[in-house]
Amino acid sequence: MNSDTLPPEPALLERLRSAVGDDGVFTDPDRLLVYESDGLTQYRHPPSAVVLPRTAEELGRVVRVLHEAGRPFVGRGAGTGLSGGALAVRGAVVVGTSRMNRILELDPVNRRARVQAGVINAALTAAARPYGLIYAPDPSSQSACTLGGNVAENSGGPHCLKYGVTNRYVTGLTVVLPDGEIAELGGMGREDGGLDLVGVFVGSEGCFGIAAEIEVALVPAPLGVRTLLAIFETPADAGRAVTRIMARGLLPAALEIIDSATIRAVEASIFAAGYPTDAGAALVVEFDGVEEGLDREIEIAAECCSAAGAREVRTAADEEDRQGLWRGRKKAFGAMGRLAPDLLVQDATVPRTRLPDVLSRIAEIAARYELQVANVFHAGDGNLHPNLLFDRRDPDQVRRVEAASGEIMACCIEAGGTITGEHGVGLDKRKYMPMVCSSDVLVTMAGVKAAFDPWGRCNPGKVLPDGIGPRHQGAGRR
Amino acid sequence: MNSDTLPPEPALLERLRSAVGDDGVFTDPDRLLVYESDGLTQYRHPPSAVVLPRTAEELGRVVRVLHEAGRPFVGRGAGTGLSGGALAVRGAVVVGTSRMNRILELDPVNRRARVQAGVINAALTAAARPYGLIYAPDPSSQSACTLGGNVAENSGGPHCLKYGVTNRYVTGLTVVLPDGEIAELGGMGREDGGLDLVGVFVGSEGCFGIAAEIEVALVPAPLGVRTLLAIFETPADAGRAVTRIMARGLLPAALEIIDSATIRAVEASIFAAGYPTDAGAALVVEFDGVEEGLDREIEIAAECCSAAGAREVRTAADEEDRQGLWRGRKKAFGAMGRLAPDLLVQDATVPRTRLPDVLSRIAEIAARYELQVANVFHAGDGNLHPNLLFDRRDPDQVRRVEAASGEIMACCIEAGGTITGEHGVGLDKRKYMPMVCSSDVLVTMAGVKAAFDPWGRCNPGKVLPDGIGPRHQGAGRR
Repeated sequence: MNSDTLPPEPALLERLRSAVGDDGVFTDPDRLLVYESDGLTQYRHPPSAVVLPRTAEELGRVVRVLHEAGRPFVGRGAGTGLSGGALAVRGAVVVGTSRMNRILELDPVNRRARVQAGVINAALTAAARPYGLIYAPDPSSQSACTLGGNVAENSGGPHCLKYGVTNRYVTGLTVVLPDGEIAELGGMGREDGGLDLVGVFVGSEGCFGIAAEIEVALVPAPLGVRTLLAIFETPADAGRAVTRIMARGLLPAALEIIDSATIRAVEASIFAAGYPTDAGAALVVEFDGVEEGLDREIEIAAECCSAAGAREVRTAADEEDRQGLWRGRKKAFGAMGRLAPDLLVQDATVPRTRLPDVLSRIAEIAARYELQVANVFHAGDGNLHPNLLFDRRDPDQVRRVEAASGEIMACCIEAGGTITGEHGVGLDKRKYMPMVCSSDVLVTMAGVKAAFDPWGRCNPGKVLPDGIGPRHQGAGRR
Repeated sequence: MNSDTLPPEPALLERLRSAVGDDGVFTDPDRLLVYESDGLTQYRHPPSAVVLPRTAEELGRVVRVLHEAGRPFVGRGAGTGLSGGALAVRGAVVVGTSRMNRILELDPVNRRARVQAGVINAALTAAARPYGLIYAPDPSSQSACTLGGNVAENSGGPHCLKYGVTNRYVTGLTVVLPDGEIAELGGMGREDGGLDLVGVFVGSEGCFGIAAEIEVALVPAPLGVRTLLAIFETPADAGRAVTRIMARGLLPAALEIIDSATIRAVEASIFAAGYPTDAGAALVVEFDGVEEGLDREIEIAAECCSAAGAREVRTAADEEDRQGLWRGRKKAFGAMGRLAPDLLVQDATVPRTRLPDVLSRIAEIAARYELQVANVFHAGDGNLHPNLLFDRRDPDQVRRVEAASGEIMACCIEAGGTITGEHGVGLDKRKYMPMVCSSDVLVTMAGVKAAFDPWGRCNPGKVLPDGIGPRHQGAGRR
């Protein structure tokens, strides 16, 4: 145990308390337990302390105190992440944003909002709806996850096929740099001149500092929406329907597939959505936008599904019906809890056209390791979520899950994909980074990290493999 | 004159020729003259040599030779930039992409293309159209500018209000790093895991290396389009129409305003578009997408224009008519050549709601300096292009143009805007950077630059003011 893993000394705790109030700092093991994991529960690292600032200024003071004490730290939103990205390895202090939950400004005319980092994703859309606006990125965890976490992970969601991910919407950030300085990046709907620091901060997985306030662009709520559910004999057929729909020049708001294992889990749960349990796959297709064109689009999509071998195509007649069609997809992760005590949600992308092929290979890998796999995927983006089901009390199952995960990653990379679609690298996928990035690229990433955090104390142990450092001037040949 | 400004020594030229062939290297002053300026002609810096590679490999060899010789260099596309960003200050060698003009791959099903950096923007859309696809960003220079230049500048265009700018579409890059190494960033429609180096490379104004090959997402060509021209007594009225349209929840593909001086210049030119020469401003509104909703959208926009005081609203009856309505906007810059021998195109952004106010202030500044100003702007984005007209043979006019430019920048910043909307910082606006970025932000930008180019030899003298260096580990307080 080195000095970093010890609880902070009393003098440091005192300084932290004077920054945020006595009720904003705690070190009792029972309360720290809440912070030991994120949504990927196989990793457990309790922090040495938790600090909860209420404003950008308090956040700045907290980070400055930690910087001066040479303590590593990690920002944390709602802890819904799926890559271990917000875990406090090396005894880091967790700086949580749960008390930073105010919407600071909502400007309907300029279609812009400014929020504290701890504001919940769905709460922003709820606040914008009375003005006919929404915040577009909608991660599946949107009723719990925070905008700050979304910025760290550059989060997507089922509708990012059409609407894009977080970085399309973040126009300004008030960030606390790793030395505690508060910096304004972009803002007022604009980029700064010069390099796009907003763009590189979004998706930096908490390694560049902590976002305190976030300015985002809002978009008009779609005036109309149409949803279709198609049932297929195999996921490969569903994949071919996706290819046909895209080839027709349509841009659906969502294209989501769930496989037979997932369908059966949902139908056995309290969320039963009426999907046929003998189906090989279900595809949800949604279009939104101006009311007038939607019927024609859904008609074309239905034709594409039939041509790809759909045995049934249902179109939602009304909003209740639409919610029903979505239910199987939305409750997929929850329902999987019925199948096994533990779940490893994988996250990878492949080119859309390679989906059928990669799905067969994932099934083969799972069978070989005698593991159950249930697939949910954002098919339009080629973003796969194979879920490996297991019981972590059985070390042999854990070993097999890890080996199968590695093979699935290798298979996706070989198909021209990568190791993460939207969950980030975090703690979990650091080891795979050299599979997708050359050493030149890793060295450049380390250099960008050092531009923000030359001390290496902001979310240590994440994203980059150990031992990768920035390029130096001396490396020139001259 | 330091060693950098001398022409390259014969041995170096020999090495460059062996990398790209004899016809790909030249140093004769007559030919170098072509490369001394970009679209912002008041800056003139002839390079010490020009090298024209044909492939990524040749480009890598060229940069490696220059790196080994300690020579600064700058990448250059078509030279249509408007911030002096591609100029060879300090006697740099220009590495041009004019022989790298092949479309390497067009994949309609995955909606993706891979091109060499010298491919012309409009040529890519022309190649994609037979498949019902387009490359969305459409800078006004799209018939000349290259994808490589678009990547460097993160270029926009009249339709970026709806479609977004270059960084939304670039999914992968083959770049030559400043030491000549070839690195793959993203690609195959995906980001790498980890930091978004594609995102930070796009818009880095040629300071991080030279893009050799670019992979972009293509989008379906809009199935329908409707265009409206509204004539107003004042630009402020046109600005109010824009605010009304946006407040109605519409998302036009384009919202472009030209002012009275511009209208008169166009109408006096061979491009006369039939705009009334006594008008105070003209607004072009365009909607595109699925055919069905468009008539209703254009009807609402027409109502908004009338409510804001439009004295006339014309809707295009057919494609020829539509081209006519656009002509005044598209030929605006060309027509201004009639008004004065020289033109300084300014570029700034302000929040949409501040447009009327800022326009009045720009008029006041121009009047005070006894300068003619003609305004063209992407009103939906709040992106202004005030054009200052002058004769550069008159030193007093040059001095007044420079002073007025500085005041216009200060006025836009004060209104909550910034110093560049889409033209970049380059050589021209380095001096304004401290007006919009704190020293913490500038230091971080310098650090990101150093992650790619610790030697400072890739496009030197651009974007960041002199004397700004990266943050160092020693800067910690501990």
